[in-house]
Amino acid sequence: MKLVKSKIEVRAEIARLKSAGARVGLVPTMGYFHEGHLSLMRISRRQADYTVVSLFVNPIQFAPGEDLEGYPRDPERDLDLARKEGVDLLFAPDKKEVYAPNASTFIEETSVSKGLCGQSRPDHFRGVTTVLTKLFNIVTPDLAVFGRKDIQQLMVIRRMVRDLDFPVEIVAGPTVREPDGLALSSRNLYLSKEERRRAPDLYRGLQAAARALAEPGAELAGVLESARREIERNTGGQVEYISAVDNDMAEVKQASDCSYLAAALQLGSTRLIDNVDVNTGDLSN
Amino acid sequence: MKLVKSKIEVRAEIARLKSAGARVGLVPTMGYFHEGHLSLMRISRRQADYTVVSLFVNPIQFAPGEDLEGYPRDPERDLDLARKEGVDLLFAPDKKEVYAPNASTFIEETSVSKGLCGQSRPDHFRGVTTVLTKLFNIVTPDLAVFGRKDIQQLMVIRRMVRDLDFPVEIVAGPTVREPDGLALSSRNLYLSKEERRRAPDLYRGLQAAARALAEPGAELAGVLESARREIERNTGGQVEYISAVDNDMAEVKQASDCSYLAAALQLGSTRLIDNVDVNTGDLSN
Repeated sequence: MKLVKSKIEVRAEIARLKSAGARVGLVPTMGYFHEGHLSLMRISRRQADYTVVSLFVNPIQFAPGEDLEGYPRDPERDLDLARKEGVDLLFAPDKKEVYAPNASTFIEETSVSKGLCGQSRPDHFRGVTTVLTKLFNIVTPDLAVFGRKDIQQLMVIRRMVRDLDFPVEIVAGPTVREPDGLALSSRNLYLSKEERRRAPDLYRGLQAAARALAEPGAELAGVLESARREIERNTGGQVEYISAVDNDMAEVKQASDCSYLAAALQLGSTRLIDNVDVNTGDLSN
Repeated sequence: MKLVKSKIEVRAEIARLKSAGARVGLVPTMGYFHEGHLSLMRISRRQADYTVVSLFVNPIQFAPGEDLEGYPRDPERDLDLARKEGVDLLFAPDKKEVYAPNASTFIEETSVSKGLCGQSRPDHFRGVTTVLTKLFNIVTPDLAVFGRKDIQQLMVIRRMVRDLDFPVEIVAGPTVREPDGLALSSRNLYLSKEERRRAPDLYRGLQAAARALAEPGAELAGVLESARREIERNTGGQVEYISAVDNDMAEVKQASDCSYLAAALQLGSTRLIDNVDVNTGDLSN
């Protein structure tokens, strides 16, 4: 596995590969790899000839007061894990390599990004779309893999790729969960022992709500309201939102229009998100 | 010359060329070709193996009330002129091919685009950067050519390409002028005979101001103020702005920091822009 820190070296390596006809896959990450990240790397390895993983804690997707400084980092371990997965190139630029001091150009997705997490994190998705545009332009991947846990991020990226005609196929990987159902996240590290024990009730509440919606005559607002109460009681946290949305992350009024139930939970100092796909019937998403 | 209306056909053609190692040049235009456009096509022909010209009157760079509907169009003549210049592919999509009805992703350049024309046309450059991002992603050119007449547009594009890491070289072509100095523009068509006769005094006023700035002890604000008065008296129009700016289009306070003098003039119903490069000494820019 090559470890590369400069854009120019990535470009040179990719140009060489592309001229040899290789199909390149990209897995963008902020590092501190868990099984969720590794599963995305495996998807890329299966679908592409050459897998690039980017590791960059992107400052512009954090608001002041969010956990940029404390975001967990372990580059040595990440290097080791990526190597074991058969990743071909790990692109780990520093901040200076990514952003000019007077950088002034941003990608604004103005619809899919506005609800759910976009309400409490108004500049978050602009940071995500901007850094991904840069990564797409540097790596020029044929495909890029994202997890379904961040369902709104996935849908914002799909919309951006469609709207801006990026020649990149967006591949979605299923959410990887702990045995008790908690979706893997680098932020789970922040949970106290007691919070960790109660955290799976976010997912259980979403599953229960999805089952309730499938009942004949289910009333959407009521289902969401009792799920909110249930999750708050069982976790001891605060539900920031629990919403029934369509594929474009717009809130729906009727159970029959719902594609996903998505929620964010503030549990102590940790903000957790999760979602279930109500259409596949596979509530494990 | 190939005339292509669909993105998918452009992509197929470019993929074929690139796999054969061709260097691709792009000249983005809104059509109604004049010698300025043709000079950009010649630059691309010299620097690239294969020249794509795009012809698309981009609705999202016009504000309501601007001249989108009346913008001059003559696709038959354009086809003929491009063919004569040896253009390899003319990409002339319709609006539906370019924008989905619910398109929601835009490129926002937040610094270089804000002064000068950005003051009176607040969404203009966002329309320009968005359509260019799409064209870059569809055509994947190695270089793209833009005229220096739209100096702010050129600098916004350079900033965008740097900030978003587009693998495209931006090449600038000199402003092409009528014998009396008027910069070529599709919008010159709107001028009455009398307005046309007086329009070159915009450029003359900019040249005179640049010469005045080169004098020892020149006082910037005074030079700009008398240039404004002079241009308004000679043309009978209204100067929207006349500004001394640096390479990032930020207004400067001292003559020694000035890279360009740029102006916009409202002459009857027509809005004209022009600029001179005060550093090259070549005031014909």
